Amino acid sequence: MIIQLQQGIPAELKENILQQVKQIGYKASEVKTQRGDYLVAIGKKDFDIRTIGQLPGVADIHRVSEEYKLISRKWRVEPTRIDLGDGVTVGEGSFSIMAGPCSIESEQQIELVVAHLKENNVKIMRGGVFKPRSSPYAFRGMGIEGLQMFHRICREHGIKIITEVMQVSQIEEMIDYVDVFQVGARNSQNFNLLDALGEAQKPVLLKRGISGTIEELLQAAEYIFSNGNENIMLCERGIRGYENAYRNILDLNAVPVLKAKTHLPVIVDPSHGIGLRDYVSEMALAAVMAGADGIIYETHQKPEEAFSDGQQTLNFDESARLIRRMRQTYALRESF
Amino acid sequence: MIIQLQQGIPAELKENILQQVKQIGYKASEVKTQRGDYLVAIGKKDFDIRTIGQLPGVADIHRVSEEYKLISRKWRVEPTRIDLGDGVTVGEGSFSIMAGPCSIESEQQIELVVAHLKENNVKIMRGGVFKPRSSPYAFRGMGIEGLQMFHRICREHGIKIITEVMQVSQIEEMIDYVDVFQVGARNSQNFNLLDALGEAQKPVLLKRGISGTIEELLQAAEYIFSNGNENIMLCERGIRGYENAYRNILDLNAVPVLKAKTHLPVIVDPSHGIGLRDYVSEMALAAVMAGADGIIYETHQKPEEAFSDGQQTLNFDESARLIRRMRQTYALRESF
Amino acid sequence: MIIQLQQGIPAELKENILQQVKQIGYKASEVKTQRGDYLVAIGKKDFDIRTIGQLPGVADIHRVSEEYKLISRKWRVEPTRIDLGDGVTVGEGSFSIMAGPCSIESEQQIELVVAHLKENNVKIMRGGVFKPRSSPYAFRGMGIEGLQMFHRICREHGIKIITEVMQVSQIEEMIDYVDVFQVGARNSQNFNLLDALGEAQKPVLLKRGISGTIEELLQAAEYIFSNGNENIMLCERGIRGYENAYRNILDLNAVPVLKAKTHLPVIVDPSHGIGLRDYVSEMALAAVMAGADGIIYETHQKPEEAFSDGQQTLNFDESARLIRRMRQTYALRESF
Amino acid sequence: MIIQLQQGIPAELKENILQQVKQIGYKASEVKTQRGDYLVAIGKKDFDIRTIGQLPGVADIHRVSEEYKLISRKWRVEPTRIDLGDGVTVGEGSFSIMAGPCSIESEQQIELVVAHLKENNVKIMRGGVFKPRSSPYAFRGMGIEGLQMFHRICREHGIKIITEVMQVSQIEEMIDYVDVFQVGARNSQNFNLLDALGEAQKPVLLKRGISGTIEELLQAAEYIFSNGNENIMLCERGIRGYENAYRNILDLNAVPVLKAKTHLPVIVDPSHGIGLRDYVSEMALAAVMAGADGIIYETHQKPEEAFSDGQQTLNFDESARLIRRMRQTYALRESF
Repeated sequence: MIIQLQQGIPAELKENILQQVKQIGYKASEVKTQRGDYLVAIGKKDFDIRTIGQLPGVADIHRVSEEYKLISRKWRVEPTRIDLGDGVTVGEGSFSIMAGPCSIESEQQIELVVAHLKENNVKIMRGGVFKPRSSPYAFRGMGIEGLQMFHRICREHGIKIITEVMQVSQIEEMIDYVDVFQVGARNSQNFNLLDALGEAQKPVLLKRGISGTIEELLQAAEYIFSNGNENIMLCERGIRGYENAYRNILDLNAVPVLKAKTHLPVIVDPSHGIGLRDYVSEMALAAVMAGADGIIYETHQKPEEAFSDGQQTLNFDESARLIRRMRQTYALRESF
Repeated sequence: MIIQLQQGIPAELKENILQQVKQIGYKASEVKTQRGDYLVAIGKKDFDIRTIGQLPGVADIHRVSEEYKLISRKWRVEPTRIDLGDGVTVGEGSFSIMAGPCSIESEQQIELVVAHLKENNVKIMRGGVFKPRSSPYAFRGMGIEGLQMFHRICREHGIKIITEVMQVSQIEEMIDYVDVFQVGARNSQNFNLLDALGEAQKPVLLKRGISGTIEELLQAAEYIFSNGNENIMLCERGIRGYENAYRNILDLNAVPVLKAKTHLPVIVDPSHGIGLRDYVSEMALAAVMAGADGIIYETHQKPEEAFSDGQQTLNFDESARLIRRMRQTYALRESF
Repeated sequence: MIIQLQQGIPAELKENILQQVKQIGYKASEVKTQRGDYLVAIGKKDFDIRTIGQLPGVADIHRVSEEYKLISRKWRVEPTRIDLGDGVTVGEGSFSIMAGPCSIESEQQIELVVAHLKENNVKIMRGGVFKPRSSPYAFRGMGIEGLQMFHRICREHGIKIITEVMQVSQIEEMIDYVDVFQVGARNSQNFNLLDALGEAQKPVLLKRGISGTIEELLQAAEYIFSNGNENIMLCERGIRGYENAYRNILDLNAVPVLKAKTHLPVIVDPSHGIGLRDYVSEMALAAVMAGADGIIYETHQKPEEAFSDGQQTLNFDESARLIRRMRQTYALRESF
Repeated sequence: MIIQLQQGIPAELKENILQQVKQIGYKASEVKTQRGDYLVAIGKKDFDIRTIGQLPGVADIHRVSEEYKLISRKWRVEPTRIDLGDGVTVGEGSFSIMAGPCSIESEQQIELVVAHLKENNVKIMRGGVFKPRSSPYAFRGMGIEGLQMFHRICREHGIKIITEVMQVSQIEEMIDYVDVFQVGARNSQNFNLLDALGEAQKPVLLKRGISGTIEELLQAAEYIFSNGNENIMLCERGIRGYENAYRNILDLNAVPVLKAKTHLPVIVDPSHGIGLRDYVSEMALAAVMAGADGIIYETHQKPEEAFSDGQQTLNFDESARLIRRMRQTYALRESF
């Protein structure tokens, strides 16, 4: 059960509602986000929902039977739109493109990518500075200095930054240089990180786990929301399977299903989803048709020289062509 | 190594080529199809391919390193187009729609579906008469009488029939009433059935196994081709995975990858691929954008009363809308 | 609902029972096996089971809520023991070892394996003569002549034969030379083959599908039983997964779960289950501890020269050691 | 390449070795653990290994071609044995039992479990105080106070503690109360946590990821070792699969394969591996036969009242019987 509280509700009214909820035998969690003040009440007893609904201070009340509550579309029908500033928003009603290299490598690289994005009117750049790597001996990214450089150049050109955060202690040092925190597939159930990102007031793009279920992804998002942050995007990036002909199985089934279950924007990453440069574009276009609110993909001035993931990275020509086609595909979808 | 023989090659020339191939230490299989005469030679020794290539009677010769040979796009770049008669063809250059119920149920049902297809200018109807069912106590289809009725009505209206064949002994009784034999996911590696369908001169739609690999699907098609039948379509229909939010994982990665590896047409079945009626259309459109040459899906006059698979079956309104949108999506894709 | 009929029930009594079942609104299937006469009645209506139970000719009656009925342990608690003749039986109360090469290759090979088995008091030899192969160009086995030779030598030495049958038409030609028909993983849901093996009066070892579920395996067994053959063994042989460090995932969880759900014997194939010779023995011993009624594995006089599956085949020394250890492990398990 | 340095090597000798390694074009990482001083050098160039091997200060040098180095059995043949103090050790040559509840719930519960363990001569108790839960609204454990209570009671009775750590910041507060840090499946690739546990001087039990590969598990262990901590146990706890008849697929194939690839002890968790109380014992015994160095499982005085995982938890009678049988099974295995 979700109880939406009236804005600026006085403490004693809130306390009274909490008492009533307890009396019914429900356990209530208080949630205060950028956008509102809620109580999430969990319990099993049957009771007349109006006994709570009519209490002073209650703006709205809904039963939500799913394990996830605040992110459910059963509760909030209206899609969440996330404002990144300067007129850049993510969510239903517009189509978002996020492109850039796997790893931030140098000043010159950032400038080349930024120029490419501006030429194609793309507003959000991806690029990793903290890289989760299977081997402890592999390149782990340029770190905070890389991020600061990344930020300086992007700010100059009005480009927003999305980059991966790997642990709680990085949030504070990164937060001033980031527009969207990305949570990688390996951290999709790193609950402490999710809690902490709930408290930080920055948008989060949450990737599905390596073999995460839809239910787990939604509950992971609930962690962030219930800690105070409503600005969450979900990202399908391919799941692990038995097939060795490609890196992952891009599970586009997830797109319409997530869109129906939650009001949060759904983004697709075809680069990791198939892992083979020759087919990234087809999968990006398929994802648009499946209903994605945006696409995040890898591009680099010279993919064959990229520090990481070169085999799934588009060059700028391929990237420009894909951007054009995605926009045409989105326009057709919107005309339906 | 594939050796394409000249049309009408005299027996002694062929014999001579076979001798030469043996001498090199290769094992040759003769393949004679509707469209040509080939030798597939398997071996490991290195030798100058021209020693065979220049023999009288050889039209063309290619090395193909894959385990599958005759269906490889490395050997034959030109896409296979399959002629079903009356101007109905399947393959690159056109977009094929195959629709109809999971099971053939009655004369009236067939007539309703046929009318729906004609109204929407769809030329191929699907419908099962022999149904593979997990339980021995479940409805197993109307059998050969159902097929004869199906055939009679479709012939009247110029509609082509695709239906599943489950065993070798059914081929002969079915062949006069069928335009395309469908091999179901559970029979994807029923090699005796594949051999027999290679000998039959009817087109085959071959579904990927329940958890079949791309490689296995291609080799299964090679069985059919190498037994004499070039008219094969491959079908992605969802693979088995850990996710319980939908019936299968529709693996659209398979589409561009198959298109690159083989010259055969690639069809997608979104009905089984996601198994939930509400999302079949999105997945069909995504499949078109991924590069599918056609879509096969389930429609029924009253899905909720269908004998089987009702939960993934579109009603006629949904079907008509989907047909329109698929054609628009295909037109956009072709404009790229 | 399973209705066990009295032995030698007169036709009119049976007819009467069938009528009563229909009247309740249930659909009944008659099943007549080597061991008994049953009616399986499927329906949803609630009714007093005694109205049927007290009819003349009814020996026993049980509700079984699972999709599989006759093979359920809820109906028949007593384990099925299968008599192969000459004192060789399979099932709870004894431990069965079935060993031999992947493929039958030659007279000499059979003789060497038979000698090895006799030396170690093993009574059942495996060996394929019809081989399902992914590629149409691979060795497909010695066929029926190979089987006849296999049979002749084994009969001389009192060894029982288990070998794979791939299609309905092979049953008749094979049946005189075989003691147990094996159904391979790829044919686990080849329902026509299962039906036909139900009618044949030979024991069947049914392998789990490449990625078959427990439920599918049980229902596949129900096909065989409901067509008249109670002598079925189930075989866990590894399932397909994402892990590339071994050929398959040997799913030993299946063993205690199958033992609880069905009265049929459960056999484990560690050779295919891990696919790596060095670890076959550990997995065989683990399977014994998990509760297997028998083990089927591959052995060959010179594994490195075997026509197929050499990488997972034990030599005779390894095989002899494994046999000893399996028997000790079984003895310990039985002492618990 | 692993260069083992002589104990107490002077700084200038080490520097000289580092210089030589760089000159060859290799990248060297210094690793200093409880047990030794190593250089791990990564590179591709071919060179005579003796040019490094003969330098003063080098105790030993080995090429290791795997991605994981220090944990490889190719480098160190001798199995790692981990000393927990008071004569409790884990690793080849003994068999370790770790048992206890999923969650620490109360003082009384701990005392009951401790009594049960002492009665059965079990030296290591498991029990979670920080619980990773899919839902943010679920019970997350008793936290640090629970751990302190857990520690106090166990110390009194000479029982060692293994409990899960979820984030870097918990290490410091937990370290005095813990004998083995457990890393859960969801944190198996939480590289910052692995780094930090490498620096902490406590043994670590590292669980395989939800669908982690063998290779990923080994590389995760390499993270810990290369940060300074050699005392690592690997734990197979079931992987995610398509089968819904049980919670996970206990992948016992992993046991002999891990034992061959690494010198670290391998522990199996049958409770999570099958997730069904009735079959936990069979799977534990199977794991022993597969070669496990120890078993970790869940037991509780009243499983049906446990705060979490009750459905896979043994009561004390079942637990006592299992302990006896595991020891007998281990004794048999050792006799082979």
